[in-house]
Amino acid sequence: MSNNVRAYAATSTTSPLGPYTLARRAPRNDDVVIDILYCGVCHSDLHFARNDWGWTSYPVVPGHEIVGRVIAVGAGVSKFKVGDAVGVGCLVDSCGHCVACEQGQEQHCKEGPTFTYGGVDRIDGTPTHGGYSEKVVVKQDFVVRVPDNLDLKGAAPLLCAGITTWSPLKDANIGPGKKVAVVGLGGLGHMALKLANALGAEVTLFTRSPGKEADARRLGAHHVVLSTDPEQMAAVAGQFDLIVDTVPYVHDLNPYIPTLTFKGKLTLVGYLGPLEPALNTMPMVVSGQSLSGSLIGGIPATQEMLDFCGVHNISSDIEVIKMEEINDAYERLLKADVKYRFVIDMASLKQG
Amino acid sequence: MSNNVRAYAATSTTSPLGPYTLARRAPRNDDVVIDILYCGVCHSDLHFARNDWGWTSYPVVPGHEIVGRVIAVGAGVSKFKVGDAVGVGCLVDSCGHCVACEQGQEQHCKEGPTFTYGGVDRIDGTPTHGGYSEKVVVKQDFVVRVPDNLDLKGAAPLLCAGITTWSPLKDANIGPGKKVAVVGLGGLGHMALKLANALGAEVTLFTRSPGKEADARRLGAHHVVLSTDPEQMAAVAGQFDLIVDTVPYVHDLNPYIPTLTFKGKLTLVGYLGPLEPALNTMPMVVSGQSLSGSLIGGIPATQEMLDFCGVHNISSDIEVIKMEEINDAYERLLKADVKYRFVIDMASLKQG
Repeated sequence: MSNNVRAYAATSTTSPLGPYTLARRAPRNDDVVIDILYCGVCHSDLHFARNDWGWTSYPVVPGHEIVGRVIAVGAGVSKFKVGDAVGVGCLVDSCGHCVACEQGQEQHCKEGPTFTYGGVDRIDGTPTHGGYSEKVVVKQDFVVRVPDNLDLKGAAPLLCAGITTWSPLKDANIGPGKKVAVVGLGGLGHMALKLANALGAEVTLFTRSPGKEADARRLGAHHVVLSTDPEQMAAVAGQFDLIVDTVPYVHDLNPYIPTLTFKGKLTLVGYLGPLEPALNTMPMVVSGQSLSGSLIGGIPATQEMLDFCGVHNISSDIEVIKMEEINDAYERLLKADVKYRFVIDMASLKQG
Repeated sequence: MSNNVRAYAATSTTSPLGPYTLARRAPRNDDVVIDILYCGVCHSDLHFARNDWGWTSYPVVPGHEIVGRVIAVGAGVSKFKVGDAVGVGCLVDSCGHCVACEQGQEQHCKEGPTFTYGGVDRIDGTPTHGGYSEKVVVKQDFVVRVPDNLDLKGAAPLLCAGITTWSPLKDANIGPGKKVAVVGLGGLGHMALKLANALGAEVTLFTRSPGKEADARRLGAHHVVLSTDPEQMAAVAGQFDLIVDTVPYVHDLNPYIPTLTFKGKLTLVGYLGPLEPALNTMPMVVSGQSLSGSLIGGIPATQEMLDFCGVHNISSDIEVIKMEEINDAYERLLKADVKYRFVIDMASLKQG
């Protein structure tokens, strides 16, 4: 097969994404070749395309919420066969032998995992490129199976938004009898509501927008608390075993801490940066609470999450776009104008 | 017996502590009357005596590191008999029926625990008074047994400094194969070194004072890292499963976070207040780490810690003072001029 595939890339900090031809590697012994059907649009794609974090090398082909079908496999591939519905998330390789890798937490690989885009292939040293493309070639250990009953379009965001919110829920042993709150109702937040609800928890959405109540309840929230209303906040003091905070920009965490139960945990999955205003440790010490961060999840957890979503028929609420609409989609993403995830129909690229 | 006992009290924010006569209650059915032999001097005593936290009612008789012998018991007391060596820590009662109390985490009692001093008795509504006194009367469920082999003077600080550092170690399942770092070498820090070492962990002290190395090693540290030296800090990147931070004043936590392993935890037991400079969540999210607070410990954990100290013959390094030296001791405490805990020999009060 030809190694050249159509893709969309950003070629500089300021240029919009546009058509780009990408050479995918010939499949190695343990590689799976995937015909990409759908790719979700994550906020990180935009940050990376625009070099918001300062470490982008151009050209960059974003996309790490990849769903497609296997069209070829290397001779040593035992886990997948042609025709399988599969997914690829944020990771495509890791060292395989550090403590983190041995625990199936490849995202914390001591040598640094290989990210799906913006990374460097561990064997040939070429840059990795993501899912805004026709095909991708990935080591079988980093490919996951998508349950047959799931809509493939809606499954794509599970590969990042799904696993990112699944990890803190599982780490906190969330299930029946537990109370979970979610801060923010976007791509991550709406998945957190669905997953926490399906896990059997009593689920609350914290929001600053009164208009989100109906949607939150449809997505799995049993309660909605307006976080700007001190009375509503006081009414939930000491309640939550876990708060999953999905807000991607700086915000005051102090009002949320007292809503945790003793030994409760607030886990950040959105915001990266300094906590301002200053976090006050007094309530945390007095009630033995914690603030943690969580980064996506490992491959075993990603498969576990997908299987769970298959059983509970959970997928993401999406708006399907064509590949050429990606720059408009980024602008709308910046305004949080999407319910709740853009997914690119890759047929639009193939026909382009 | 007479209910009046000699004590030392602060009667206002600015007055030094001085002799005070205190009426202890007649023992109730489930009460233990304790002849106090030694009482440790905790930094909280000073904060409380001087109303640093703004909630002190005067007069206040501080002291919550109490060790003594049982001299009388109520008719319903089954756990202790006259002559037993016993201890009382920070708590003397709690509601007994909330989730926290049912889990033996009385320090997180939903109705608020009754503190040993500065609290209000749950039955008669009188103020509670601490261990700077000849005798104390405490409900048997809040009295713990001091192992026979322990030096009673050195055991007194176990009741607060000991349990405060024991709790984060146990919560993080510290044992052989785990790496623990301790920030700060004072009353709490020196106990953290001893306990972490005895639990089988590899123990590191973070300190800003090069002169503390020999003492740290004697107390249980296998390594000493000068936290002001960026090279030494870089050399321990990604190392620690747990950092127990005992520093009681505001300090920058950002340099410590990267020394945690993925999913590692930094637990604050000293500092109560806003985190300045701002804590940056980036490394915490990327490595799935957490920052937590921890408050003393419940009664079952306190007994477990004392029993462990009995088996490992662990007590606090102390300087014994007379009751009338307490005001000087407070001044020296403010200068961290004690290795590592003042303990009042209560014979000095009885003879006074």
